[in-house]
Amino acid sequence: MNIATSAPADPAVLAARQREVAAALGAVLPPHCVLSALEDTRPYECDGLAAYRQLPMIVTLPESEAQVVAILNVCRQLKVPIVPRGAGTGLSGGAMPIVDGVVLSTARLNQIVRLDPYSRTAVVQPGVRNLAISDAAAQHALYYAPDPSSQIACTIGGNVAENSGGVHCLKYGLTVHNVLRVRMVTIDGDVLELGGEALDAPGLDLLAVFVGSEGMLGIVTEVTVKLIPKPATARVIMASFDQVGAGCNAVADLIAAGIIPAGLEMMDQTSSRMVEPFVKAGYDTEAAAILLCEADGTAEEVEEDIARMSAVLQQAGASAIAVSQSEAERMRFWSGRKNAFPAAGRISPDYYCMDGTIPRKRLAEVLAGIAAMEIKHGLRCANVFHAGDGNLHPLILFNANAPGEFDRAEAFGAEILALCVAVGGTITGEHGVGIEKIASMCVQFAPAELAAFHAVKRAFDPARLLNPDKAIPTLNRCAEFGKMRVTGGLMPFAHLPRF
Amino acid sequence: MNIATSAPADPAVLAARQREVAAALGAVLPPHCVLSALEDTRPYECDGLAAYRQLPMIVTLPESEAQVVAILNVCRQLKVPIVPRGAGTGLSGGAMPIVDGVVLSTARLNQIVRLDPYSRTAVVQPGVRNLAISDAAAQHALYYAPDPSSQIACTIGGNVAENSGGVHCLKYGLTVHNVLRVRMVTIDGDVLELGGEALDAPGLDLLAVFVGSEGMLGIVTEVTVKLIPKPATARVIMASFDQVGAGCNAVADLIAAGIIPAGLEMMDQTSSRMVEPFVKAGYDTEAAAILLCEADGTAEEVEEDIARMSAVLQQAGASAIAVSQSEAERMRFWSGRKNAFPAAGRISPDYYCMDGTIPRKRLAEVLAGIAAMEIKHGLRCANVFHAGDGNLHPLILFNANAPGEFDRAEAFGAEILALCVAVGGTITGEHGVGIEKIASMCVQFAPAELAAFHAVKRAFDPARLLNPDKAIPTLNRCAEFGKMRVTGGLMPFAHLPRF
Repeated sequence: MNIATSAPADPAVLAARQREVAAALGAVLPPHCVLSALEDTRPYECDGLAAYRQLPMIVTLPESEAQVVAILNVCRQLKVPIVPRGAGTGLSGGAMPIVDGVVLSTARLNQIVRLDPYSRTAVVQPGVRNLAISDAAAQHALYYAPDPSSQIACTIGGNVAENSGGVHCLKYGLTVHNVLRVRMVTIDGDVLELGGEALDAPGLDLLAVFVGSEGMLGIVTEVTVKLIPKPATARVIMASFDQVGAGCNAVADLIAAGIIPAGLEMMDQTSSRMVEPFVKAGYDTEAAAILLCEADGTAEEVEEDIARMSAVLQQAGASAIAVSQSEAERMRFWSGRKNAFPAAGRISPDYYCMDGTIPRKRLAEVLAGIAAMEIKHGLRCANVFHAGDGNLHPLILFNANAPGEFDRAEAFGAEILALCVAVGGTITGEHGVGIEKIASMCVQFAPAELAAFHAVKRAFDPARLLNPDKAIPTLNRCAEFGKMRVTGGLMPFAHLPRF
Repeated sequence: MNIATSAPADPAVLAARQREVAAALGAVLPPHCVLSALEDTRPYECDGLAAYRQLPMIVTLPESEAQVVAILNVCRQLKVPIVPRGAGTGLSGGAMPIVDGVVLSTARLNQIVRLDPYSRTAVVQPGVRNLAISDAAAQHALYYAPDPSSQIACTIGGNVAENSGGVHCLKYGLTVHNVLRVRMVTIDGDVLELGGEALDAPGLDLLAVFVGSEGMLGIVTEVTVKLIPKPATARVIMASFDQVGAGCNAVADLIAAGIIPAGLEMMDQTSSRMVEPFVKAGYDTEAAAILLCEADGTAEEVEEDIARMSAVLQQAGASAIAVSQSEAERMRFWSGRKNAFPAAGRISPDYYCMDGTIPRKRLAEVLAGIAAMEIKHGLRCANVFHAGDGNLHPLILFNANAPGEFDRAEAFGAEILALCVAVGGTITGEHGVGIEKIASMCVQFAPAELAAFHAVKRAFDPARLLNPDKAIPTLNRCAEFGKMRVTGGLMPFAHLPRF
């Protein structure tokens, strides 16, 4: 654990700074919007990556865009770093505070401004929960498609910051594909609107660069999202495989057959045996791997897709195939998948959830590589993941109280990500880089590419006040990490496999 | 016509500069890759926006990525502006040369590097023609979806620069949705790879900002595109309407019914009467407007979609509905649409093709507004456009030899674009900004938004050597244009309608 902070060493200096900044913020915000007492700031000391904690100097809870502008103006003038925060469900430490910084929580910007069933859009403030959008749209038989596991709690502002996905993003896309416009405040206190209702927009596509920028470019104050019609029906296939590799190849075969399932998830035997006693989803715990393949649409479309998918799965060597016969059974099949992470807590004191993405056709090879790493590091790993996207979520099981296990889990995780990069994939599918994977960014990108990221960051935030030291490592840091990619002159990627 | 160039007034100074730069380029490129004789550079003096012409100082035709790097190094060191050029089919003057600049043509970077039917991707050099990708993929029953009208000639590098669309982009997306990775050279001579095979990538989404950046951020040397399966079959409906407004509302109704046609095009009576004698497509020239609605997929899917679309069109008041009964008839129905622009040349000495995008539900209102402008400016306008995307292509008909008509056509065009912005749309759907619409960018964007574009441009190209004075107007230029948006403090967009 080696997190960069700009911590002043002296508590007296920090206390004086806290008084100075709190006074300046108090001059522009109502008192209940500025928290600096320890009991008030404690809940903000970490996000979902709870292994990393840091108390913030001050927490602000703006209630309007004008207050967001005021906070940014104060912080810019006093050179205070700002960490934006949604619901704090992020898994990569993107919302971890800075010791002499301000946390800007969007919790009170929680209004649905407008919902238009005709244009199928909703305009919402950043603190609106992901699921609350779909709940509000349900009366029009519409919903907001991206569905991260945390969708009950996580907010659309956080989804924009992380470019969140979910079980259905294979068919319906990530946040970036479902957001039309973002209204945001720059560190200079300017309000910009990025994107628009049209399919294309002139000028540079700053909306796409903003989505997934992990709070480094500005503070979201309003998001316009697409709503889509709820499918008339959905059914899910559970297919068993005697070999993990055969299940992996079936995933590639389904996509190669031109089928885009509404969801295509895989669980290995470690995962199904971890989940089944807890959830009783009806999983085949004798199978080396199971696939869950969903079809949605009209009844006719679903029947046709289920038949086509079943044929491909059988051809690929499935040892058993079950199709949900009712909505209750469909929900039961999914319940095990959705509860896999909590179930891990029942068989292991701690677990470390990784998030790498690889080309689908390398799935079998990478899972075999992870199995070899289990032996090398002496730790078990459960694999339950978005197979259709090639988005792995290896759960490394360990006991933080056993000497050395935390370090071995970290090394295991870094090795998984390096393997993802080596086969042409990436170090994160949907959880972001945050502080957790900043070193792995040095493996993923060449120095000239990191320099391009920094140049764009500087264009928005030259003083590096917005969520500094997250997401993009400095070249110095990569040099310290010792794994900076060495490029061969003109062709930095030539030595790596391309697919 | 008021185009900013950095023209040295003195021909002798220009000739000396030409010798200096040609010698420097000649030292790093083979002789046939550097053109400076008038007869060699003449073909590059304009792109598809032929009303604007400028001879370049020098044209380069690199044959490898290493040569692109060498050209950029020379130009950076000698401070020579560079205008990248694909096939020169662009309609907004994005490839118009600069008097003391170098044109970098990608014509000789024309190899298909790799085509992988399993991962459904093709890796191609930028000078490969759009249609050549689909031709190469046809043996695997795959194709590249974006299909601009110029697809026989236009290149993938140009498509990336303009984020090109086409008749099918309503269903299959624009270039940005169909490109996975771009390899490019920065003005510093660094080679970067943007994007990747995975659905999401860590770091900032520089691929999306690069696509559509009109040659201002770097030179493309390789593009990885998605290929998709050719639909088994396709049929098209031709629906007639007695009122333009009823046809417009039918477009919104189709989308609101949850149908995404493979193509959804509209022609008004001026257009159908312009085209029919020339193409004999079988159009209903008595109708005030006709809609062409295509369905593609399996035979069952197509039958179902055709039935659903027909029902919606009838409900919306279609006076006649014809469905293509054969592939030959389908091609005939489309032939009129695809030849509308050439047909305009038969009824008018000149025409000016506009390209604005609006929310679909404002179509009827905007077309009525354009009809009123026809009277005001004393010029006819034919409307033939991508109705499903809300992407208008008004063809303003005029005679450049009649005194004042060119100026009236330009004023008419600017007024159409201002109306598009006023109803919540944009000044370009797919043709780009280039030099043509740079003043309209001042209408579209607030100063803080233009400043954000410039900041990102500076991040890539601080010396402003890559396609300078295109696409993003300076604030000075907007002030001269006299139409800079005035923002009301914190809420620059609050006074405009949002949908």
